[in-house]
Amino acid sequence: MAEVEFAKSPASVLRVGPGFSLAEVDPESTPGYDGAKSDGKSLLSAQDSRLAELQEKLFAEGKFGSTKRLLLILQAMDTAGKGGIVGHVVAAMDPQGVQLAAFKAPTDEEKAHDFLWRIEKHVPDAGMVGVFDRSHYEDVLIHRVHAWADPAELERRYAAINAFEAGLAEQGTTIVKVMLNISKQEQKKRLIARLDDPSKHWKYSRGDLTERAYWDDYMDAYNVAFQKTSTDIAPWHVVPANKKWYARIAVQQLLLDALEGMQLNWPKADFDVAAERKLVEES
Amino acid sequence: MAEVEFAKSPASVLRVGPGFSLAEVDPESTPGYDGAKSDGKSLLSAQDSRLAELQEKLFAEGKFGSTKRLLLILQAMDTAGKGGIVGHVVAAMDPQGVQLAAFKAPTDEEKAHDFLWRIEKHVPDAGMVGVFDRSHYEDVLIHRVHAWADPAELERRYAAINAFEAGLAEQGTTIVKVMLNISKQEQKKRLIARLDDPSKHWKYSRGDLTERAYWDDYMDAYNVAFQKTSTDIAPWHVVPANKKWYARIAVQQLLLDALEGMQLNWPKADFDVAAERKLVEES
Repeated sequence: MAEVEFAKSPASVLRVGPGFSLAEVDPESTPGYDGAKSDGKSLLSAQDSRLAELQEKLFAEGKFGSTKRLLLILQAMDTAGKGGIVGHVVAAMDPQGVQLAAFKAPTDEEKAHDFLWRIEKHVPDAGMVGVFDRSHYEDVLIHRVHAWADPAELERRYAAINAFEAGLAEQGTTIVKVMLNISKQEQKKRLIARLDDPSKHWKYSRGDLTERAYWDDYMDAYNVAFQKTSTDIAPWHVVPANKKWYARIAVQQLLLDALEGMQLNWPKADFDVAAERKLVEES
Repeated sequence: MAEVEFAKSPASVLRVGPGFSLAEVDPESTPGYDGAKSDGKSLLSAQDSRLAELQEKLFAEGKFGSTKRLLLILQAMDTAGKGGIVGHVVAAMDPQGVQLAAFKAPTDEEKAHDFLWRIEKHVPDAGMVGVFDRSHYEDVLIHRVHAWADPAELERRYAAINAFEAGLAEQGTTIVKVMLNISKQEQKKRLIARLDDPSKHWKYSRGDLTERAYWDDYMDAYNVAFQKTSTDIAPWHVVPANKKWYARIAVQQLLLDALEGMQLNWPKADFDVAAERKLVEES
């Protein structure tokens, strides 16, 4: 490939390990990548077909009894670019192999159940790539910020999340957890840009401003969630996201690495190819 | 646009009207389009962004209370290219606004209900583009071919389908019904190509050959289904599909025309934009 590739793997440089602190991540930075914006855009587009091929292999294996599947969990403050990841990274994969779930404020029915109840329904089937646009982490983020859950309940939830994700991994799920990290200043810029463009007004919610006022509390809630739930089986990755082009290639690379790590192969025919070919010829 | 566009609208030239006969359609033809393959490929890619924009408007309107939605129904013999339509036409739209349902052989639970029961669950939500990869039409196609339903039951189903689709239209659904029409000879070529490529073996099903033996019965079943269910509200379009590039631009154009016909607009802000902008500036 003639493209400028990552010098260091995002899977390692962006991974949340012991002692991690969100405050030390520069949302403007491009860890592991030395190229410019134009290089990043070329890389994104050049790697689309590789991502699509790996996803098709995963899908094909699923049809032949493999239990492997991939789950991308996206969390972020409003305007950080979750939608752009779906539209510009995930979109390269065949829609038939992607199960997308966007989790909004829970319904009354959902509230009447444990917080994982509505999540369980959307875990990806074998062979599929699942994408969670927001997730069960809302129950330890917004719930912590607004004290909708008390400390003991939050502790129960962190543990329940780890047990849940361990169960998913046990079933063959590779989990990629991503927090898109923008600065408070960048969010302001993006909110104003929405307000200045009539074709974007529908995306603007007055609730965004309400939550923005709790910015520091959210950062605390993220930090605690990272400490409690960045496990070996399902580590968190914090992706600097002030530069949209960087966030996209970083998430793309995380997906590529995850899929490469799954050792995917085209399933072998479970029939006699030559004999079948003869039958088709004669048909 | 510098592209070679359709000389005649696929919505009219491909539409199944009175006296239509499948036998009179040449699967190699490119009705309404005078360009070459390379022109068609350029057109497909050039119109991606227009399709994406219209879909986003539909989605945006849905967020603001509109009941409009779009349903694309795809039917075809095996290998005709339904997957390619999803991967190369539908894929241009934001995955967040697309609800894809692939209908396989019904489960025992589904069989215990009326044939429309499983279909109802997948009709698109307001603002969404629904895509049916196979559909309720299987219940008057394969069921007719193998006489799994008797003539009286088939009549009941045609009527039930028309009533069902009229109800969808009443709820704000624009329905685009497409049959991808390949020749029996072309199917043979494609089945052999699958068998000659180990990365495609997983797509080959021995059942394909079984159904291929009933080719003429399927064509009869399609003809009858067209006569019974090509209504003003939900007309059928038969898309010649031996040339994949043509089938793709034809379906893309059908979707574009359907969306254009929906008179979509960006929703107006339901808040005071200037006041909100000031609040964001101060935040």
